[in-house]
Amino acid sequence: MKAGLLYEGKAKRVYQAEGKPGHLVLDYKNDATAFNGGKREVFTGKGRLNNEISAYVFNVLNKQGIQTHFVERLSETEQLVHQTEIIPLEVVVRNVAAGSITRRLGIEADTPFNPPLVELFYKDDDLGDPLINDEHALFLSNINQDELLKIKTKALDINRQLSKVFEAINLKLVDFKLEFGRLSGGSIVLSDEISPDTCRLWDITTNENLDKDVFRHGTGDLLEVYQKLLHRLEAGS
Amino acid sequence: MKAGLLYEGKAKRVYQAEGKPGHLVLDYKNDATAFNGGKREVFTGKGRLNNEISAYVFNVLNKQGIQTHFVERLSETEQLVHQTEIIPLEVVVRNVAAGSITRRLGIEADTPFNPPLVELFYKDDDLGDPLINDEHALFLSNINQDELLKIKTKALDINRQLSKVFEAINLKLVDFKLEFGRLSGGSIVLSDEISPDTCRLWDITTNENLDKDVFRHGTGDLLEVYQKLLHRLEAGS
Repeated sequence: MKAGLLYEGKAKRVYQAEGKPGHLVLDYKNDATAFNGGKREVFTGKGRLNNEISAYVFNVLNKQGIQTHFVERLSETEQLVHQTEIIPLEVVVRNVAAGSITRRLGIEADTPFNPPLVELFYKDDDLGDPLINDEHALFLSNINQDELLKIKTKALDINRQLSKVFEAINLKLVDFKLEFGRLSGGSIVLSDEISPDTCRLWDITTNENLDKDVFRHGTGDLLEVYQKLLHRLEAGS
Repeated sequence: MKAGLLYEGKAKRVYQAEGKPGHLVLDYKNDATAFNGGKREVFTGKGRLNNEISAYVFNVLNKQGIQTHFVERLSETEQLVHQTEIIPLEVVVRNVAAGSITRRLGIEADTPFNPPLVELFYKDDDLGDPLINDEHALFLSNINQDELLKIKTKALDINRQLSKVFEAINLKLVDFKLEFGRLSGGSIVLSDEISPDTCRLWDITTNENLDKDVFRHGTGDLLEVYQKLLHRLEAGS
């Protein structure tokens, strides 16, 4: 179903979908990267796990009325999505302080954010995906003020929905990164992926990390942890 | 008129004002620093010049109805101000892209911002005064959402007023940094200083820098440039 390769990112290849105008095929890679590409390793099976986990999460969101680019999973590592124009923002929602924000702002790890904190980063590898404010986002991207507000509101709505989904399988959604894209008709939908590459998930009982932090900090077996997360999602549903 | 030293910053010492409860004496130092203290030099006479320039600018703003902490200049290097509780934010207004923003966000130098861009930085030397967004500001500082909005509105108002003041002496106000403080009664006023240490000012005809960039980049004589700015302000008034 794949036609020409459009783009290769750190975690996925993006192809035009053959015979499906306005659609793309995402092919999940086995590469794990961290620290803006500074750490890199290949884990055979990671692409399949993230494809399944992200498809699971996007199906949940689609059912709950959140508009996303996701159509269906096509194979072990591939999924069909609606083609969107990329909005060059990473939208991060934080329920608890962890990772970069503790170093950047001197906020003690594990500090809860009530209400949850929303951060915007400018998607630009050469600049190291810098933190930006709303005015930067309007200057640097292809969205207007009303659309930015809607994106942030939707990010908080997704946070509420996903927090429940993960809480049901005894996981705390600590923080996560979203991306959005614009459909040809103009409306903005959730795009990219939601997986342990893009979320921090902590076991509520044991505080065990079920996310990419085990790779970032060398504290666990990435495949084992991602497999455990998928099992828990499937068993909990 | 000075009683005990309360605080010594990079550019000023702050004293309790003797016999004037609720007031402070700011004593401007001769130190020039740049790059978060990485470059440092003493220029005999700089304290006097910045005290005079900042007093001039605050007098203009006071007359135009902007509430500030400034009361009066007391001596060559000292001024009397209302005591305020520090709000740990630096509010930067940019009319044209120059300095850090060009490197941070890859915006070409000299790009105009229409409307002007407002940025918030968290005042914390150990963290390198990091850029923050509105939600960080509310989490990290002692202000509420309504007060943050008023601070940003006031910063843009000050930008309009000062742009006119400098344009009248053939200078472009490129960008500047403001700080705010809370009076004992609760209201928030402009505090700190406005000087060539905290503004970028370019001659409209020649593009010459009349600000600390001549020290940052070693492109001119700081005292000569600050003296020239003071002369132009006084002659233009």
